[in-house]
Amino acid sequence: MASHIQKFKIALCQLLVTSDKERNIARARELIEDAALKGSKLIVLPEMWNCPLSLQNLSKYAEDIDAQDSPSISMLSEVAACHEITIIGGSIPEKANGQLFNTCCVLGPDGQVKAKHRKLHLFDIDIPGDTTFRESDTLTAGDTPTIVDTADVGSIGIGICHDIRFPELAMLYRSRGAHLICYPGAFNMSTGELLWELMQRSRAVDNQLFVATCSPARNPNAESDYMIWGHSSLVGPFGDMIATTGHDEATVAGEIDYSMIHSRRENLSLAEQRRGVIYKTVDVLGQIA
Amino acid sequence: MASHIQKFKIALCQLLVTSDKERNIARARELIEDAALKGSKLIVLPEMWNCPLSLQNLSKYAEDIDAQDSPSISMLSEVAACHEITIIGGSIPEKANGQLFNTCCVLGPDGQVKAKHRKLHLFDIDIPGDTTFRESDTLTAGDTPTIVDTADVGSIGIGICHDIRFPELAMLYRSRGAHLICYPGAFNMSTGELLWELMQRSRAVDNQLFVATCSPARNPNAESDYMIWGHSSLVGPFGDMIATTGHDEATVAGEIDYSMIHSRRENLSLAEQRRGVIYKTVDVLGQIA
Repeated sequence: MASHIQKFKIALCQLLVTSDKERNIARARELIEDAALKGSKLIVLPEMWNCPLSLQNLSKYAEDIDAQDSPSISMLSEVAACHEITIIGGSIPEKANGQLFNTCCVLGPDGQVKAKHRKLHLFDIDIPGDTTFRESDTLTAGDTPTIVDTADVGSIGIGICHDIRFPELAMLYRSRGAHLICYPGAFNMSTGELLWELMQRSRAVDNQLFVATCSPARNPNAESDYMIWGHSSLVGPFGDMIATTGHDEATVAGEIDYSMIHSRRENLSLAEQRRGVIYKTVDVLGQIA
Repeated sequence: MASHIQKFKIALCQLLVTSDKERNIARARELIEDAALKGSKLIVLPEMWNCPLSLQNLSKYAEDIDAQDSPSISMLSEVAACHEITIIGGSIPEKANGQLFNTCCVLGPDGQVKAKHRKLHLFDIDIPGDTTFRESDTLTAGDTPTIVDTADVGSIGIGICHDIRFPELAMLYRSRGAHLICYPGAFNMSTGELLWELMQRSRAVDNQLFVATCSPARNPNAESDYMIWGHSSLVGPFGDMIATTGHDEATVAGEIDYSMIHSRRENLSLAEQRRGVIYKTVDVLGQIA
């Protein structure tokens, strides 16, 4: 990052997503504009913010981003340029080459798409008699980690929801110099209560950087029985919860001060205390099975 | 592990450690025998259970384990054989070749030392005006991860205190088939409140295995100003807190059921969902700095 970046304001827009796509886009625009007017330079949207979380309906809401046939991303581009902000555009269903992806676009303050992250780890769970959810039946996984170097809000790694469950991805971003990892996500009630805060705090602590998560708001009237946990949060490099919320629609605003990363690592440098030679004894690339 | 092992009882002896070594050894024996009589097959002691946590005094309490000149380990050996239990012997200061180590011995039900783990990651922290603690001025770090395959309590990885801060070590044990990682430790009040539970739950969740921690009890009369957090705990493979305690002397007992590991991994296999090829793009062995 440019060395002068230290402090800026971030906003996490915990949008109430409905089945009306136009309404979702309009409402997201309102929340973003409101946060920008209040001084946020970086704004994060939730996973699947333009459509309800239902695998059956994804193709109906999907947009072709590469063909620039994407009203959702066009809106983000416009607002980013108008307010000269960076937007981590949560995710939307993307259609490309006959496939569907769960995709996050990052928009720069010039309105350009600076990066496109396709969810790397699809959420497949099968608890007989309780929960069965198989994203991989509908979606295709991405193949590339995404880190964005910006001029004014630092280096940002991107993960979508289940991507947070994999420490390797966060370690990879840390090794490439990320100051912040943003995880748009939509944990449900059971994994939310048990894991949502745990995962974001441990990724922050283990890598001594900031973590921001953004979930949709819980929709009690949703047709789907997938109930969303909410609790979008900003966590500091010592695992400290800087700002968070409940499950209703809300914008979580907080200040990021990257000098905290430097001071944490000065006080106690996990990177220097690592025993790289010892870990070499394990093939972390393929043998963890 | 032998495939018939599924369930057994574990006890974490949160001993109140004093400056009287003979008393510490006698009291540890009492707690272990009591837990064994109540049915525990695996017993864990705290970090530095035979001496106060003060770097200046370590050499006074240190024992030469390899020369079999170790009253602390002799006691553990006797009790293990007498009750036919496995003991994860917390840690004691070990002297060897003119150096001092922070060392955990694992005793099998035949009383033999099955493994010796020397703390791999020494705790060096420097927060000007607040905390300065440099283990590496006094202690030498070990060079080898330790995993013990037992006939009756599964495969157990060992870490001591600050070792828990490094996800790589837990991942290594997972890759080698550990069912349980035991971390004797002695977090202080500030890192304890912020990180103790977080670290053990995230290591368990990320690797889908059991984690047990064992701390000394807090000693309000200790001469040192290092106040101990306590809260020895047993955590299940979904990050669930199975058994824990406060900061007073106590034995935390809980049941370990290894079939839970199997069912967790059947429901949602993080190992299968890993994207090994993608992580290959980072050199996790030395470049995370």
